[in-house]
Amino acid sequence: MEGKDFIKVTPDPLSVEEITKMVTSPTSGAISLFIGTTRNNFDDKEVVCLEYEAYIPMAEKQIQIICRDVRTKWNVENIAVFHRLGVVPVTESSVIIAVSAPHRHPSLESVQYCIDTLKTTVPIWKKEMFADGEGTWKENKECQWRKT
Amino acid sequence: MEGKDFIKVTPDPLSVEEITKMVTSPTSGAISLFIGTTRNNFDDKEVVCLEYEAYIPMAEKQIQIICRDVRTKWNVENIAVFHRLGVVPVTESSVIIAVSAPHRHPSLESVQYCIDTLKTTVPIWKKEMFADGEGTWKENKECQWRKT
Repeated sequence: MEGKDFIKVTPDPLSVEEITKMVTSPTSGAISLFIGTTRNNFDDKEVVCLEYEAYIPMAEKQIQIICRDVRTKWNVENIAVFHRLGVVPVTESSVIIAVSAPHRHPSLESVQYCIDTLKTTVPIWKKEMFADGEGTWKENKECQWRKT
Repeated sequence: MEGKDFIKVTPDPLSVEEITKMVTSPTSGAISLFIGTTRNNFDDKEVVCLEYEAYIPMAEKQIQIICRDVRTKWNVENIAVFHRLGVVPVTESSVIIAVSAPHRHPSLESVQYCIDTLKTTVPIWKKEMFADGEGTWKENKECQWRKT
């Protein structure tokens, strides 16, 4: 079926409400979403925030390929893939994927495909900032790349 | 892991933003959602709205059983299952399910399980109101049970 792809790799915070509205359509009865959020631990260590960086045109181009592949596999209508860059504090969203479709199984399956494929093919780098890490960020409350 | 179940069968409109906030947690890195919306067609006929009815205590009790089952199958944190009753116009949400979990696959799989099981076990009745159906609702803009 016809549909739109909404793709954005951005330093701005992501809104589940706005992204859900983007994919909503009178001809779709199902919207599935995946939201990746920063959690406060990794490898049994306390995480203060995550930081993401990417070369935006390359990342968006790769996401476009994922959307194209989804449309060859499932009958879906609109697809939104938004990824935030920069510092993402605990509980905030780094990625939101939403897919609308006439029926629920195509939307559910394609969201899972999108996030699994994004994780393995889209060049976005992530760094955990640990509570016991470098001291500078603690002083100025900024998260910096973790030195490994 | 510990977590909360948020269950509501209600005549009020559903907010994806509010329900996402409910399940968000610092110890979870993934939130998956399913939203069922009214679409404008069914069996090649134009649909104007859907109408749902249920005996609320019985529906909520059955949803509680689904949440309990999810927790025996997957490591998830918070589960929200909200279902709207009454008239739900085209593009609006009749059901929103959200599950947070430390990792994405348990959240994705449990949302699919929740909606599939809800559809087969929870006693909520749905009626399509067709554009070529009874005339009374057209006059007063209210959807009534379709006469079959």
